[in-house]
Amino acid sequence: MVKLKGFQKLTLTDQALQSWINALQIGKPKVVAVSLQDASGRVLAEDVIAQEDLPRFDKSAVDGYAIKSADSVGASQFKPATFQLTENPEVNAKQAKQVWTGNPIPKGANAVVMLENTKKREGKLEVWNQLAPGDNVSKKGEDIKKGEIGAKAGTRLNPYHIGLATALGYSKLKVAEKPKIAILVTGNELAEVGTQLSGNLIYDSNKIMLSAMCTELGAETTDYGIAKDNVDEIADKIQKALQSHDAVITTGGTSVGGLDLVPDAVNKLGKPGVIVHGVALRPAMPTALAMLEGKPVLVLSGNPVAAIVGFEVFGRSMVCRLLGMSKTEPRPMLKAILARRVASALGRKTYVRVRVTLKSGEFYAEPVSAKGSGAISTMTQSNGFVIVPENREGISEGETVVVHVFGSLEVADQNV
Amino acid sequence: MVKLKGFQKLTLTDQALQSWINALQIGKPKVVAVSLQDASGRVLAEDVIAQEDLPRFDKSAVDGYAIKSADSVGASQFKPATFQLTENPEVNAKQAKQVWTGNPIPKGANAVVMLENTKKREGKLEVWNQLAPGDNVSKKGEDIKKGEIGAKAGTRLNPYHIGLATALGYSKLKVAEKPKIAILVTGNELAEVGTQLSGNLIYDSNKIMLSAMCTELGAETTDYGIAKDNVDEIADKIQKALQSHDAVITTGGTSVGGLDLVPDAVNKLGKPGVIVHGVALRPAMPTALAMLEGKPVLVLSGNPVAAIVGFEVFGRSMVCRLLGMSKTEPRPMLKAILARRVASALGRKTYVRVRVTLKSGEFYAEPVSAKGSGAISTMTQSNGFVIVPENREGISEGETVVVHVFGSLEVADQNV
Repeated sequence: MVKLKGFQKLTLTDQALQSWINALQIGKPKVVAVSLQDASGRVLAEDVIAQEDLPRFDKSAVDGYAIKSADSVGASQFKPATFQLTENPEVNAKQAKQVWTGNPIPKGANAVVMLENTKKREGKLEVWNQLAPGDNVSKKGEDIKKGEIGAKAGTRLNPYHIGLATALGYSKLKVAEKPKIAILVTGNELAEVGTQLSGNLIYDSNKIMLSAMCTELGAETTDYGIAKDNVDEIADKIQKALQSHDAVITTGGTSVGGLDLVPDAVNKLGKPGVIVHGVALRPAMPTALAMLEGKPVLVLSGNPVAAIVGFEVFGRSMVCRLLGMSKTEPRPMLKAILARRVASALGRKTYVRVRVTLKSGEFYAEPVSAKGSGAISTMTQSNGFVIVPENREGISEGETVVVHVFGSLEVADQNV
Repeated sequence: MVKLKGFQKLTLTDQALQSWINALQIGKPKVVAVSLQDASGRVLAEDVIAQEDLPRFDKSAVDGYAIKSADSVGASQFKPATFQLTENPEVNAKQAKQVWTGNPIPKGANAVVMLENTKKREGKLEVWNQLAPGDNVSKKGEDIKKGEIGAKAGTRLNPYHIGLATALGYSKLKVAEKPKIAILVTGNELAEVGTQLSGNLIYDSNKIMLSAMCTELGAETTDYGIAKDNVDEIADKIQKALQSHDAVITTGGTSVGGLDLVPDAVNKLGKPGVIVHGVALRPAMPTALAMLEGKPVLVLSGNPVAAIVGFEVFGRSMVCRLLGMSKTEPRPMLKAILARRVASALGRKTYVRVRVTLKSGEFYAEPVSAKGSGAISTMTQSNGFVIVPENREGISEGETVVVHVFGSLEVADQNV
């Protein structure tokens, strides 16, 4: 616990996440069967199991000739073994039958000599190398055996999983239904995009951005609009949203310095309400983690970058759980050399925005100058986070850091 | 050039890609305006430019009190400066006006003291620290200035770009129209999923898998079915596909050892036809790169893993170009310690499938045992490629390698 004026205490980030996830006890997601064409990116709800061996029969891995390997003993380019060509279904001693990649191995044969290691001469086939049984043969069940698991429940399906499932004869896959997430932003200062700005109004960027973040992870979102800074209005909208959604995400109205509108609204609606409020996390300190009707309510800061980091730390975990994953899906990561010192406060976990470049075979992470948690351009200029742990006061230039990657890497020497 | 029986010559991978891309001369993509809600993942066709400063006015970066910084000179917790609280629009000397994060800085003030560094006493405000002009103020235009580029054409939009565009007042974005790609697989041995297998038939897994790979990159695909091993049937389907598509991808019928059905079909249809056939690339040697009617035709192997690697090397570049990117979008990458020696042939670029795990702060890449280019389960067991260059004969255990990541990383010590 870290003391701070404003918040009575700040909860350590890992502890906050762990207690929230434990409290939520999210059950298995609803299951929906989708066609293979629609399955990529979805999260598998049931194991993909091989109903038979793949390949279903021994097949040639190359273009060449199927033979009995024993007939090639001692063969070399200088002392070829000679074979009779056959077109019969069965290969007998000293016979060779032409096969293309993927063809079944003919009965009697147990190896395939590659085309380039043979020569046809006077109607016969010369073989230039010695083969062992099984050479250039894809054995029945070599890819996957009947009963084996091809992909486990909880896996996010990529095109290769789809390919495997297709080869196994699946035409539909059972995946987690998309979690339904309601997004509500709060703040008297906010205006919807497409409207005319006046006075001190600013466009709300959180709602559409959070929706894109949820969608990217495989959820679907409902826009609950912009609530004014009013506990009753906020509570009313959260209550409505809970009726038809698996989770609610809010932004704004959570700073203890200002008004605790959203946490107050959440606590008005039931138990346990707010579980954690105030996290030793920069730039997402005012985040609150709550539960109502057994469903997660994620109360994020109104500052865009603080909302992003709050979602990164807590929202990802929440969505992954709603999708039936047992652990939070990590971002792509890499190790890079920190190109410039970054500062951080002892006792806070700090998310530093960096731009990673690959130059002459080395990854460099250049911190994107921190202009405060409102400057969303720092997120578009960067492609990853470096996480400074609580026990460090900054990280020095030249240190190796782990980067959690969210954007395209810059490759300095790329030609094409 | 590497000599090989079967192919007269193999073209080096980079050279093959470069000559194909140069020949293609793909123009700018068609542009379509999409709502911000639908823009994530799309590729920007026009720069996003700030039409005005963001923020539009100086605003408070914290909860606290706006003051003239000069009035705080010498202030400390032991010797506070005292201020008169005001609710007027303008802050005069020795006055303080309460502001919340995001509020405009009142006229006359030039700094904000944080709430926790103040105390209200007998109706007045004590300030405990000395401020410099601009302290805790987000300056007008600090995030992005009027006329600056927020995101460049060719950028793949992530949720943060969407957030920035929203804050800038955009309600639609101009993105590249999805390239239309026709997918045709060839092979007498292939059956469609959902049908009953008999004899030596196998399910085609390439068509749906390639479609998912194209879709993942932002293209849309049309299924041209399974063509028999017949040059005329293949040529006919490719010709039809070219009429309404930006590119054609085929699989199978490209092995010089067997029959060159697809390259022959392509060359029948016009000039230049096949530009490269046979690449010093493992496991995608029989790949052919072609152009008809100025459009790319990518002729992949029928072996699933060879088709995957052929698409990885050539297909990604093609789709990225069709989307208007000037360079191929790289996969996420990382450096890892190779956990076991991998073999490769001198003179070939070799794609090795590996499984990357993060354990005790170190990334390890475990090669997934190569069962030949047909075993698609090796792709689902792995999460990245290690590329062995042409001038290496294998890579030793313990060497540091760059991994191109296509699947979720495994984090050994992850709790939540």
